[in-house]
Amino acid sequence: MSGLNAIFSPRSVALVGASTQPGKVGHDIFANILRGGYTGILYPINPKSKSILSVRTYPSMKDIDDEVDLAIFVVSPEVTLKSMEEAIKKKIKGAVIVSAGFKEVGGRGAEIEKEIVAMARKAGIRIIGPNCLGIINPSPAISLNASFSARMPSPGNISFISQSGALCTSVLDFAAEKKIGFSKFVSIGNKADIDELDLLQYLHEDEETEVIMAYVEELKRGPEFIEAVKKITGGKKPTPVLVIKSGRTSAGAKAAASHTGALAGSEEVYNAIFEQSGIIAVDSIDELFDYASAFAYKNESSCGKFMRKVPEKNRMAIVTNAGGPGIIATDMTISTGLELATFDEATVAELAKHLPATANLHNPVDVIGDASPDRYENALRAVINDKNVDGSMVILTPQSMTNVLAIAEGIVKIAKQTHKPIICSFMGVVDVSRGVQYLQDNGIPVYRFPEKAAKALSALFRYSTYISRAKVIPFDLKYDQNTAGNIIRGCLEKGINYLGEIEGLDVLKCYGFNVLPTQLATSPEQAAEIAEKNGYPVVMKIVSKQIIHKSDAGGVILRLENAEDVKKAYNKIVQNAKKFNESAVIDGVLVQKMATPGEEVILGMNRYKTFGPLIMFGVGGVFVEIFKDVSFGLAPLNREDAQKMIRKIKGYKLFQGFRGMPVADIETLERSIVSLSDLALNHPEISEMDINPLLVHEKGKGATVADCRIILSQDEK
Amino acid sequence: MSGLNAIFSPRSVALVGASTQPGKVGHDIFANILRGGYTGILYPINPKSKSILSVRTYPSMKDIDDEVDLAIFVVSPEVTLKSMEEAIKKKIKGAVIVSAGFKEVGGRGAEIEKEIVAMARKAGIRIIGPNCLGIINPSPAISLNASFSARMPSPGNISFISQSGALCTSVLDFAAEKKIGFSKFVSIGNKADIDELDLLQYLHEDEETEVIMAYVEELKRGPEFIEAVKKITGGKKPTPVLVIKSGRTSAGAKAAASHTGALAGSEEVYNAIFEQSGIIAVDSIDELFDYASAFAYKNESSCGKFMRKVPEKNRMAIVTNAGGPGIIATDMTISTGLELATFDEATVAELAKHLPATANLHNPVDVIGDASPDRYENALRAVINDKNVDGSMVILTPQSMTNVLAIAEGIVKIAKQTHKPIICSFMGVVDVSRGVQYLQDNGIPVYRFPEKAAKALSALFRYSTYISRAKVIPFDLKYDQNTAGNIIRGCLEKGINYLGEIEGLDVLKCYGFNVLPTQLATSPEQAAEIAEKNGYPVVMKIVSKQIIHKSDAGGVILRLENAEDVKKAYNKIVQNAKKFNESAVIDGVLVQKMATPGEEVILGMNRYKTFGPLIMFGVGGVFVEIFKDVSFGLAPLNREDAQKMIRKIKGYKLFQGFRGMPVADIETLERSIVSLSDLALNHPEISEMDINPLLVHEKGKGATVADCRIILSQDEK
Repeated sequence: MSGLNAIFSPRSVALVGASTQPGKVGHDIFANILRGGYTGILYPINPKSKSILSVRTYPSMKDIDDEVDLAIFVVSPEVTLKSMEEAIKKKIKGAVIVSAGFKEVGGRGAEIEKEIVAMARKAGIRIIGPNCLGIINPSPAISLNASFSARMPSPGNISFISQSGALCTSVLDFAAEKKIGFSKFVSIGNKADIDELDLLQYLHEDEETEVIMAYVEELKRGPEFIEAVKKITGGKKPTPVLVIKSGRTSAGAKAAASHTGALAGSEEVYNAIFEQSGIIAVDSIDELFDYASAFAYKNESSCGKFMRKVPEKNRMAIVTNAGGPGIIATDMTISTGLELATFDEATVAELAKHLPATANLHNPVDVIGDASPDRYENALRAVINDKNVDGSMVILTPQSMTNVLAIAEGIVKIAKQTHKPIICSFMGVVDVSRGVQYLQDNGIPVYRFPEKAAKALSALFRYSTYISRAKVIPFDLKYDQNTAGNIIRGCLEKGINYLGEIEGLDVLKCYGFNVLPTQLATSPEQAAEIAEKNGYPVVMKIVSKQIIHKSDAGGVILRLENAEDVKKAYNKIVQNAKKFNESAVIDGVLVQKMATPGEEVILGMNRYKTFGPLIMFGVGGVFVEIFKDVSFGLAPLNREDAQKMIRKIKGYKLFQGFRGMPVADIETLERSIVSLSDLALNHPEISEMDINPLLVHEKGKGATVADCRIILSQDEK
Repeated sequence: MSGLNAIFSPRSVALVGASTQPGKVGHDIFANILRGGYTGILYPINPKSKSILSVRTYPSMKDIDDEVDLAIFVVSPEVTLKSMEEAIKKKIKGAVIVSAGFKEVGGRGAEIEKEIVAMARKAGIRIIGPNCLGIINPSPAISLNASFSARMPSPGNISFISQSGALCTSVLDFAAEKKIGFSKFVSIGNKADIDELDLLQYLHEDEETEVIMAYVEELKRGPEFIEAVKKITGGKKPTPVLVIKSGRTSAGAKAAASHTGALAGSEEVYNAIFEQSGIIAVDSIDELFDYASAFAYKNESSCGKFMRKVPEKNRMAIVTNAGGPGIIATDMTISTGLELATFDEATVAELAKHLPATANLHNPVDVIGDASPDRYENALRAVINDKNVDGSMVILTPQSMTNVLAIAEGIVKIAKQTHKPIICSFMGVVDVSRGVQYLQDNGIPVYRFPEKAAKALSALFRYSTYISRAKVIPFDLKYDQNTAGNIIRGCLEKGINYLGEIEGLDVLKCYGFNVLPTQLATSPEQAAEIAEKNGYPVVMKIVSKQIIHKSDAGGVILRLENAEDVKKAYNKIVQNAKKFNESAVIDGVLVQKMATPGEEVILGMNRYKTFGPLIMFGVGGVFVEIFKDVSFGLAPLNREDAQKMIRKIKGYKLFQGFRGMPVADIETLERSIVSLSDLALNHPEISEMDINPLLVHEKGKGATVADCRIILSQDEK
């Protein structure tokens, strides 16, 4: 029995710190396990009392003459430490430490936490907690409620992982009302040993879990998290993972030397992690529940095997007994990326057979306020059987003649005959309650408001698109990693940690970027010489450590066509730079052959502790600065990730032959993003960088780096 | 007694078409009035039965030997028409026509509707309906439930207007659960006579209504609606109006000859109407309820007078017994435009006195999971009394030791002592129900999820900002309306309905726009002559009715500095144009003095039937085309409206000294928007127009029109 199995499905549980005093955690958890109908054996450990709630206690773990799979600790950190030693001797397989006072308070508590984890790892024991609410396994075969909460949820196919213990009690309360059943329910507290990823992997393998919901405050693993979760959300037996992430606004983007650094905050990192790993991020607790019941929605006709109902395409049919809510549903359907299906003529004819003359036979189908159950059933059958329909939403408003229950029965009947999702909005509370109950009992997602039903359908559709997406053939790229490493080390040895057009471009060249001939001139004459050698037109740019934004300082002059202009430009640039910053030390002026024109894009990277390099892409200039029209991805990025990043920004239109401009070389852009990701991974000394602009030329003609800045750091960020 | 008073507070009601058959509308409405405890006298009209539900019937209205204030019709259109004649003789004051079969079915039904309205108007009778659910006045003094719905809502200070009858039954059901009481409840159906505006004005005057909610599908009045509603939402006794508008996505923007026409759809028109009239537009039915209870929230300590609780500034304090939900609330607080207050030192000291060592004494204040009622009360008192706090959110998760009711009592106690809003999120259903009930009974807004509480607080703050906004001194503008009118009429007479740089600029000149010297050349030599006369540099542009987007056709050449280049450019432009469109008839090439540089903006107008001219503003080029970074306003626009439109777009940053550029002449831009609005109102022949670009110069230096197109139409759109 593995550690996580021992935690969720133990044959026997020892509760260390079981107490006779109601209101104490050690008593309440004991009572909850006992009264929750746990199917294994429960051993209360308490050296002072003889029994608790009629059950004989044991002074210590060693007094139990039986195997113990799971030990639950509700004693002080010091006592937990000592008891863990005993537990190890007793050969327990899993542990849940409910008690607080560990890492979250620092000092000795933090030390004890480390010691316990070290001991447990050595002994092969897995730990949930400390500082958590406990775990619940409502499956009838186990029926274990090892938590604070007296409320045992009903069994179901949704698992819930929460970093907040307090949220758990609320979630159980909401779930009871919404008739949401759980497979596993776990409060992970300090995550000293088992974290979200361990649980996601365990639950993905768990036969009883079909949907995973999680409340996350922070993750402790970066790229490996993405790689592992990809296999969960998009592998052979995909499990949808719904996450609400809090703390979005608390840590804003920090001041940084690069555009990328300034735009990429922790929110962007998390968004990238979720997107790349196929996690469905939700905005509110409300939405978490709304989506969970839609994702738990299964095909009844599939002989016992779980088959999720997802729409293959985005064409939805709406059946409603009220015009207004039908329009509201249409609005939300379209604004969430779905479409209203156009029915076959045969469908319209079939609808005409069953509906009154005043009904609307087209989408949204209005069966009229006085609709009988038959009318709903016939209309729903007609539209769901239409090959142009991928799913349906049924809206009901309770009119005085509405037989809500019979309508629900008709919907369930049709739903059992189709693999297409049917989602309901029964608009009301008391008046619709019997119908809602019937739908819930039969696993049909039902919402109070049509807006929510439409959003849930849209989430299902996006998920269906994700799991059936085509694979992209990756690039086969070769780099000169050694030379790049030598350049970087060389700079660091010289104490240089800012690489501009000279060394920066050299590094990029090693990673297959096309860069412009660029040389530093320290006199007007030398500038003219360089220009004559490399060819016109040239652009000239100030080089000074004190001047980062060259244009702001009047330090850039474009389109110089002859030697005389080059000389003049040299003097002008130096003069401007001195005016801009009197104390600036001027290293010289770069003379760079001007690139053939192209769409100016910016590529950048900002390195995060734990998560590694976050790559940014956007269209240059005002696009980045005013609209923040950029996309992010966490390295390693493959071609598919790069494609998504490129397509995500609004400026993507510019690459597609916008207003007579040529179509851009998007393949080179994709390759550049992948190369930048590899560059960042191969050279951890780079802490931030911008390629700005990268000029993307016409399709087939590549791209050219016109400027870049690379910031090195010897310390990890 | 006015018509609307007679409808909502009649002393006597005649129900024309009262029926003895349960399930028939004529029976159910009769039963609902009777059982709803109506305080006036109810007369059932039915020529066939002697009594209904023990009440004696009258064969016709004329048999009633008493005054009748309100007649309700539940008979066929033909019978309604006849009965209305009788009702007029009986001198009724108001009517509600519940029956369907009128305008919505067309034909004779539509005719009868018109006839009835004409008759009623002549007699001074106001009508609700036809094709509606009826009206409800739950006030104990009247207690009239003249509707389909057996559910009489509890009395309250919220009124609801719905264009969808079916929605009403759902709304009543939701409201009952949320303990929302109503002042007036009305289903307006076909709006043959009384429409939303009549009702808004009536309800604004109504002593019992403090908040108005409305479900709107379409409005029939344009600018007058805005002017009237402004007085309701922002006048001396402001009444917040919350609207959910459906049908947003059904009518997309149509194909149009101008940018403005292409970007401005009916959604933009409605958004402009709501924004300018101070209406709070909500996105979902859910949100309508969430906001309604927050806006109905009143100050208890104000000696009987209704005082709405709104935050003066945006600094909020959060008090929570759970960290996770506190973070979620913080996220939503900040992302909806509120701030977390920074407490006074004295407040922190006060919190320290009452809270345990592990509590967080700073915002969000964490009173810890085991918080007692005292701890909540003391913490809330401390933060709400801080002068840096404008409102508070209290979050509760039900832990096993949480005394939910006592905590609610403590909150109510504090709330009664402060004018600052306190909004709660009690996270749960069953476990928190007693506390929720107590809060609701005491008028404190309470939500299941902290996200909703934060959004409601934010809506209150935005409303508070709206009602206390500073007034802007309007521009005093003079126009040469006559000359402009002559130019337009002249063109129309010649069959010209597309005015470009020649006549278009002349029209704009009449409205105070600064335009560039522009003349048409029909030969290279003439072009050079014009350039020599008006001065260099010049820009040259193709003139051809077949070429609308001149740049796309290579029909624009900029920055010409001498006569020879002008001649060359002439030939090149004509050549390009012919290549672009072989059959284009080329009228010549414009020679225009180049403007001094400025920020390129686009101003435009698109005229809508009913609603009139919709003015658009945006930054030119890709800003409009890719980001649709534009704002809209419905004429007439005053300076305040213009300011809002300018500040609303993201590109506004460009005007404020972005990256070393000069600050732009925003005052001239404001004036230009107001002038364009006046121009559009004064000349209804203009159906669409673009000023593109208007070059906005440095502050104090005005703006110059570089190009424009005006499209005339003799028909109203």
